[in-house]
Amino acid sequence: MTTAVVDEKGWPVATRRRLLDAAMNLFSQYSFAGTSLQMIADELDLTKAAIYYHFRTREQLLIALMEPILSEIGAVVETAERQRGARARAEAMLTGYADIVARNRALAAVTTFDPSVRRVLRNQPEWAAVIDRQLALLAGTDSAVPGAINAAVVLTGLAGAASTAPRRLDDDTLRTHLVDVGRRTLGLPEPARRR
Amino acid sequence: MTTAVVDEKGWPVATRRRLLDAAMNLFSQYSFAGTSLQMIADELDLTKAAIYYHFRTREQLLIALMEPILSEIGAVVETAERQRGARARAEAMLTGYADIVARNRALAAVTTFDPSVRRVLRNQPEWAAVIDRQLALLAGTDSAVPGAINAAVVLTGLAGAASTAPRRLDDDTLRTHLVDVGRRTLGLPEPARRR
Repeated sequence: MTTAVVDEKGWPVATRRRLLDAAMNLFSQYSFAGTSLQMIADELDLTKAAIYYHFRTREQLLIALMEPILSEIGAVVETAERQRGARARAEAMLTGYADIVARNRALAAVTTFDPSVRRVLRNQPEWAAVIDRQLALLAGTDSAVPGAINAAVVLTGLAGAASTAPRRLDDDTLRTHLVDVGRRTLGLPEPARRR
Repeated sequence: MTTAVVDEKGWPVATRRRLLDAAMNLFSQYSFAGTSLQMIADELDLTKAAIYYHFRTREQLLIALMEPILSEIGAVVETAERQRGARARAEAMLTGYADIVARNRALAAVTTFDPSVRRVLRNQPEWAAVIDRQLALLAGTDSAVPGAINAAVVLTGLAGAASTAPRRLDDDTLRTHLVDVGRRTLGLPEPARRR
């Protein structure tokens, strides 16, 4: 017999994880805007009250789902901004982003492609700022329009490639390919050439 | 006084166009899976019966919306496949795709990013074949995995960049930038270098 880990009110801690996983799955299929808390409750045979215990609103659930990946992106942005030179900053942002995307293929697609998710992120000032800093790092020293287009192609293209990559492709191999294509897209030299 | 153009049953022809525009707008916000015919009817103050007159199902409406852009992609695929050499074929596919995306920014994003739309397209054998031929042309002679990743980055990245490009950027300028970034992504030489 196994004993479920429970919180101070006696609810299984695993319920929160199951809620997030079910929400992720439904958001991928129906988009955030097209998924109700009722649909998530139905998916898990839970009452809406059980969901409300964990998340007061659908936005709170989305934020809990996005929080880890956005924190990771925030940490990569901080590190990248400390590099000397626009190319080194773009390279650090690219490699960090490729690593996050390779390990979070479905979540990266939802974060990047779902317009209703992008709207929620844009309404969180600290996250909107992280995304803008990420785009600025990827744009590098290119002038306004081509730089913004390069950055947008990397941001969405890497998420698109990761979400459609065969599952048998392991994260490390995928990351290597994403970094290679990202460097070409941004016009960054391969590190070997710089040695 | 203006007289509305009507079809043989007396319905305004413009209703079909308004239906498609309203559907496009709702699909962009809520995804195809998250948009009901009732939501489209409400948006236009029409009854569901009025929609059924034009489209029997939500899928038929989506297909009518996608048909023009997919036909254009099919024509580009045909032309590209007639070029001699993998690079010339990739170049023709890229320039044709960039042109379509620049002129259909919102629709390109829905076609490329919405998983429920991709599922419908994948279930139409002739369209699934066009998308596969498009990806094969973009992948060029690269070996399986990197080629597929390059193609996916161009397919999703160009749609992502176009859908977030500022409206003041005219279609021709956007197309030029998309072709430039796409060539770098695919490792294609700029035409000037080949002359």
